[in-house]
Amino acid sequence: MANTIYTHYPPELDGQQEAFLVQTVKNWTVEHALTVRPSAAIVPSEFNSGNMLATNAPVTLFPSPFPESCFDQARGLQRVYNELYAAIASDEQWLETVLKELIEVDDFLANLWKIYLDVRREGHAQHLSLGLFRSDYMLHTPDDGPKSLRQVEFNTISSSFGGLSCRVAEMHTHLATYPSPQHPIAYPPHPLFNNSEDSPIKTTGRPPVNTAISTLTAGLAAAHQAYGPSKSTPQLPTCVLFVVQDTERNVFDQLALSSYLHKEHGIPSFRLPTSKITAYTTVAGTPERPLIYTPPSDTSTQYEVTVVYYRAFYAPTDYTDAHAWGARHSLERSAAIKCPSVLLQLAGSKKVQQVLTSKPPGPYHLKSFLPKHTDSTLESLRSTFAPQYSLSSSDPAVPAEGIKLALDPATAANHVLKPQREGGGNNIYRSNIPGFLKSIPESQWKQYILMELIHPPKDAKNFALRSDGAAALGNVISELGIFGTCLWRNTPGSTAPEILHNTEGGYLLRTKSKESDEGGVAAGFSSLDSVILYKD
Amino acid sequence: MANTIYTHYPPELDGQQEAFLVQTVKNWTVEHALTVRPSAAIVPSEFNSGNMLATNAPVTLFPSPFPESCFDQARGLQRVYNELYAAIASDEQWLETVLKELIEVDDFLANLWKIYLDVRREGHAQHLSLGLFRSDYMLHTPDDGPKSLRQVEFNTISSSFGGLSCRVAEMHTHLATYPSPQHPIAYPPHPLFNNSEDSPIKTTGRPPVNTAISTLTAGLAAAHQAYGPSKSTPQLPTCVLFVVQDTERNVFDQLALSSYLHKEHGIPSFRLPTSKITAYTTVAGTPERPLIYTPPSDTSTQYEVTVVYYRAFYAPTDYTDAHAWGARHSLERSAAIKCPSVLLQLAGSKKVQQVLTSKPPGPYHLKSFLPKHTDSTLESLRSTFAPQYSLSSSDPAVPAEGIKLALDPATAANHVLKPQREGGGNNIYRSNIPGFLKSIPESQWKQYILMELIHPPKDAKNFALRSDGAAALGNVISELGIFGTCLWRNTPGSTAPEILHNTEGGYLLRTKSKESDEGGVAAGFSSLDSVILYKD
Repeated sequence: MANTIYTHYPPELDGQQEAFLVQTVKNWTVEHALTVRPSAAIVPSEFNSGNMLATNAPVTLFPSPFPESCFDQARGLQRVYNELYAAIASDEQWLETVLKELIEVDDFLANLWKIYLDVRREGHAQHLSLGLFRSDYMLHTPDDGPKSLRQVEFNTISSSFGGLSCRVAEMHTHLATYPSPQHPIAYPPHPLFNNSEDSPIKTTGRPPVNTAISTLTAGLAAAHQAYGPSKSTPQLPTCVLFVVQDTERNVFDQLALSSYLHKEHGIPSFRLPTSKITAYTTVAGTPERPLIYTPPSDTSTQYEVTVVYYRAFYAPTDYTDAHAWGARHSLERSAAIKCPSVLLQLAGSKKVQQVLTSKPPGPYHLKSFLPKHTDSTLESLRSTFAPQYSLSSSDPAVPAEGIKLALDPATAANHVLKPQREGGGNNIYRSNIPGFLKSIPESQWKQYILMELIHPPKDAKNFALRSDGAAALGNVISELGIFGTCLWRNTPGSTAPEILHNTEGGYLLRTKSKESDEGGVAAGFSSLDSVILYKD
Repeated sequence: MANTIYTHYPPELDGQQEAFLVQTVKNWTVEHALTVRPSAAIVPSEFNSGNMLATNAPVTLFPSPFPESCFDQARGLQRVYNELYAAIASDEQWLETVLKELIEVDDFLANLWKIYLDVRREGHAQHLSLGLFRSDYMLHTPDDGPKSLRQVEFNTISSSFGGLSCRVAEMHTHLATYPSPQHPIAYPPHPLFNNSEDSPIKTTGRPPVNTAISTLTAGLAAAHQAYGPSKSTPQLPTCVLFVVQDTERNVFDQLALSSYLHKEHGIPSFRLPTSKITAYTTVAGTPERPLIYTPPSDTSTQYEVTVVYYRAFYAPTDYTDAHAWGARHSLERSAAIKCPSVLLQLAGSKKVQQVLTSKPPGPYHLKSFLPKHTDSTLESLRSTFAPQYSLSSSDPAVPAEGIKLALDPATAANHVLKPQREGGGNNIYRSNIPGFLKSIPESQWKQYILMELIHPPKDAKNFALRSDGAAALGNVISELGIFGTCLWRNTPGSTAPEILHNTEGGYLLRTKSKESDEGGVAAGFSSLDSVILYKD
């Protein structure tokens, strides 16, 4: 069934239909702020020197089919995953053991770890931590087995596209139902839209409502409330601080959260580029160390920051100099709740994900971190792991299997080599792996993780509308992200987090053309999408 | 008082404050679709060939002060004005008398009139008419008299900016109240915002809520309902048709109405460029003549059009050839309710406005058209008229006074010469008038109307943010538009319209730099603004 569905989707469009659909999407996206700032490759900066232009975010013209059972499984696991990563970030010793070897060779991880050590030495001013998470999966459909979910990544910092993905689901719903679900003007009839005379498919006919914006902002609001009253004397008004990149094209995704945070929760927030942190924030010299923000536009007013929400500082490129690391350190030592703390950011490293996949007879980490969950829940969680291998021969759990698999062209053909660092990019695929490894010193191998390739539906196709206005039909690969939030308290001396708020809600489907092996929606390689669920 | 207010407004901004305010506005506008498509002067078309880009509509950074008494007067008169123009459009004989001379020399008016005559000959298939109106005023503050409202124009076709003006009011409100009205981060304190320690002003502190979108769409919905069931056999689903220009940069203003029409009233609407009317609409050959629309993207479905809403065909430039006039004729003869009919469009011509200003001992037109209204209401209406003069020496009411005033440099200095045609542009001001008249044949003089100049507050200033991203402080002139809608039925043989729906709601403030004598927001000369009301 599944294969048939992908083979006959999306419906064919004639020239008039495609032109109408593309024009409708171009208007809808701008009308609903499903937009990004255009790159200089689209509009040379001389014509956008005021940075006032916007264009449609890259989007698919149709939602993509996705099996309901796998979607439900991913949703069902999210709160368990949230708890797992809260537990990992609460166990500094375990993290240190896992990351030790990497920290020796990776300046980025080493700097984050150093901040953690410095703050620990000084004593933590804040024992609450917030995670706004996104767990990313692909649908694995091997020729010789049943389909399943495979986790690609668990994002613990700057999980993006919650704002825009809600709007994509709304847009696809509009296109599938306007003026009526029986006769949408923009989509030809199709069994997946429940309006065709062809053989019926059990389907919802339109994307499920996407609640990412309300879920993520509720997480920020929970942390803001948990922070309690101002710790300053006299008391200051409080706010949430969005730490952003100096040059950010994905600003409307972020504004969706800050606007909703104010509209629904009455909580003010301000945007602060990383380069201005030192100039406009200070940590008060009191034992409580509240973080004070002075708006550049109104230096007569001060705010106390309850939550530092990072939409920057997730990748090495965000730290241009020692100044940037100093800024991160300053925020970390403050009383503000960090989303995330450096430990939570480190917990999201690919190395941790790889270590978690190990199972008895090796150490059963899942059981240790989630002692209260049943074996069947842990088994469902584990079933989403893709086999992953360390390339470190000193790893006692899986000594040298990864190296063997990576260097043999026959086994390399079914794997991808990923750098351990955050921020994506530079994955090495299949037959390129052996040659790549031989081209670098063996001492650097441990910076990579070998992962078994996931086999998404072969015949999946969709139309993508790029931010430069061009639309094209092509073979695609989709990645499903499920959003979740977790707020917890750490008790000094204990590795068990006290969970205060743990929610799941909202999703992202990111669809890229099969020709590209890399992701990154804002970079223009992939498109924002939504799901249309079907039952097998 | 009034003068002091304009002298000390807007509050001063230092460099950081202006940069923050401009950046906030650039983000807010795109986030809330307060946008236009950029012109080729802003982004060369080679970089926008997909027509996917958007930029902020030209907006002021601050709302502009406006006396509450004049604002309330304008609102209070709107339903009377609606009724007046319904009555004028119902009296073909009166209109013919007034416009006869112009029709002889003006092809545009002549073609409209010919369509009316052709349809009358065939017999009207629809006796309901809809007007979505905007009455435009300036604040007249002569040195030697009290301030008052002066009407600039009464728009009976394509009254635009209802959609965007709502958002400007929301934006200025956000800027004045975020995160709190006592300490907005984007605006310095000022008495007009009710948050300064300076001498208090009686003010609302923020713009009044703008209801233009709901008012205008309620008018369309009332007409849609009044149309009744489909007149086709078999019955067809019904829709509203937005007739638009082939190239429209102000599309998001229009989408605000169509989206709201569907969301709040469940009424579908479609956009049809003028060049495609003939290809995708037909008038059924039955006596009832329903207008049938076939969407280009779905030729298997047909809709019956209840209301033709013109956002095009208001200016001669919209009629590129005989084909366009044929399309207008076809729509006019159909059973669809026209917004507006050709007669209502003609009623909005400047010549009509000028004739209305005549008063006893000449014919008292106001009294004839509005027999049920009190003298004091009519006097309030009349008080908004600027003195206007025909340049036709055969006009029996004001024989040659206009010509005398226009040719004498001393009196010309207090006047503007306006072409009678719709669509704006080419006004001649002050000392240029005598020379201009002498440069054209006397036979063409009757195509112009001479109007006494309005004296807006001299010291009004505001910041404008253009669509190219540049912001500047300057002396400004503002024009207040009040929106209203009217639906009525004409009974054959009677000139008294039966009013079915008559509402007022929402406003537009359009602010232009004093250096420019011309309007036209989308053309980049003026900015969308909102009002901040004060009591004298």
